[in-house]
Amino acid sequence: MESIKNFKELTAHLAVAGVRKRAAVVCGTDRSTQEAVLRGLQEGFLDVIFVGGCEDIRAVGAWAPYARRVTYVEAATPDEAARAAVALVREGKADILMKGLIGTDILLRAVLDKETGILPKGRVLTHIAATELPAYPKLLFFTDPAVIPYPTQEQRAAQVGYAARLCRNFGIACPRISLVHCSEKVNARHFPHTEGYADIIARAAAGEFGACLVDGPLDVKTSCCADSLHTKGIDSPLGGEADVLVFPDIEAGNVFYKTVTLFCGAETACALQGPLVPVVLPSRADTSASKFYSLALACLAD
Amino acid sequence: MESIKNFKELTAHLAVAGVRKRAAVVCGTDRSTQEAVLRGLQEGFLDVIFVGGCEDIRAVGAWAPYARRVTYVEAATPDEAARAAVALVREGKADILMKGLIGTDILLRAVLDKETGILPKGRVLTHIAATELPAYPKLLFFTDPAVIPYPTQEQRAAQVGYAARLCRNFGIACPRISLVHCSEKVNARHFPHTEGYADIIARAAAGEFGACLVDGPLDVKTSCCADSLHTKGIDSPLGGEADVLVFPDIEAGNVFYKTVTLFCGAETACALQGPLVPVVLPSRADTSASKFYSLALACLAD
Repeated sequence: MESIKNFKELTAHLAVAGVRKRAAVVCGTDRSTQEAVLRGLQEGFLDVIFVGGCEDIRAVGAWAPYARRVTYVEAATPDEAARAAVALVREGKADILMKGLIGTDILLRAVLDKETGILPKGRVLTHIAATELPAYPKLLFFTDPAVIPYPTQEQRAAQVGYAARLCRNFGIACPRISLVHCSEKVNARHFPHTEGYADIIARAAAGEFGACLVDGPLDVKTSCCADSLHTKGIDSPLGGEADVLVFPDIEAGNVFYKTVTLFCGAETACALQGPLVPVVLPSRADTSASKFYSLALACLAD
Repeated sequence: MESIKNFKELTAHLAVAGVRKRAAVVCGTDRSTQEAVLRGLQEGFLDVIFVGGCEDIRAVGAWAPYARRVTYVEAATPDEAARAAVALVREGKADILMKGLIGTDILLRAVLDKETGILPKGRVLTHIAATELPAYPKLLFFTDPAVIPYPTQEQRAAQVGYAARLCRNFGIACPRISLVHCSEKVNARHFPHTEGYADIIARAAAGEFGACLVDGPLDVKTSCCADSLHTKGIDSPLGGEADVLVFPDIEAGNVFYKTVTLFCGAETACALQGPLVPVVLPSRADTSASKFYSLALACLAD
């Protein structure tokens, strides 16, 4: 397949490839969640199971044309809804889990429950996002702006692995992955992250993460701008054309996320990876477009 | 005075106020430094002392119209040039120090020399920048994207103090300063920065930094977007109209700096604060416009 370079190409790909996924939407009573789900139904790549808040949701006339593709599971409380949706995933009845108007902590508690949850033992739970920037010629994936505060070496390796796999599902045969840092110099004393980066690069070169090209430390500019790279006289196999930015910690990742959405006119899509199925976990301030793109992205995450 | 909202207003203000500063430019042999200096001469706010590389610089015809405002100090080596420029500052003969085509380490060594340098004992050396973003209605100052890796509490307090003072020099009577963090919740266990933030806010309220309004933890969006603030139900005295973002560490600050310049069409100006005079220390990839704006900003830093 050709690589998917923006969100329009993403939904077009889902249509051409005939992808159809079942999303369990927990407490989908808010408007932006419903708009995102409706658009997924219209585009054809989504079937929906609303779990919790069903009475209010049924009252919305918009579902009528898609009656066969929308089902309802009642739940008395948000907690019960979260557990019921997670159970659907365990039973193989849902391919995507999505948060509606419910506290993140309630949904995550159900996901992470050691007995009844859906995070296999030893799997790293982390957050990945893709952004479509007016000033970049392709999607730029990044991790982790929201979940792991200060990744350990193994968590970072997992982030690289998830990102590489997701990119390949987007048709990027050999994704270019940058381990981001404020400086391009490895300096264990001042910048402890940079030492671990060398180990990740070696593991990537040994094939641990499948086909991909990993380099770093590089800053955002030398990761994504060939001119900056050359001006600084740096030789990087990524060539200033990163597909993925792996941020050193949540502070750096979150600044990137908030800055591109607020100041750069960027669209974004996000999902949690690690659980049995991708989890779409929007923040309150996310637009319905962002939630829709997140559902589309989740269709290619595995 | 009215507050200065963009770089055009900054240079207009310097003209109206009749500001004229003497910049000691170390090894100003590269084109973008010369372009920036020339524009400062043209706009009228700059006199220039070129220190080192004088033969090459004299050969550039552009200085002829400003012959009385350009002087030369010869130096045999970059190290000698750096020391000579620093000496000019110590002798009260230069108001701004600027780096040309010379290693940052060489210039900083001269600045920081305990005997002959220009950083008073006990003063914190830190980096501040201002950015003009197409999507924000005023200048947005931020610190520290480049110098202090992981600020201590006292270093952060100094950053707040410098930023507040610089903003007031820009005519912002009561600057709104955000202590940035990925989450708005104070959480000492997971996010150790956030505990220190409360102390800085208390010190600001007690008047330690002069007139200013400090709040945090806030993320980039809730710092700079009233809608995001309200959607999240957060009550912040900054009202989503921050003048200053104080980043938790160099990783977060550097990501912001590189992201806005690469993806948001932002112009930036930067200077080091702490030494006897502001130091303009551009990075190799900076444009001449950015160097020019940095000189203009340095005229208001003290």
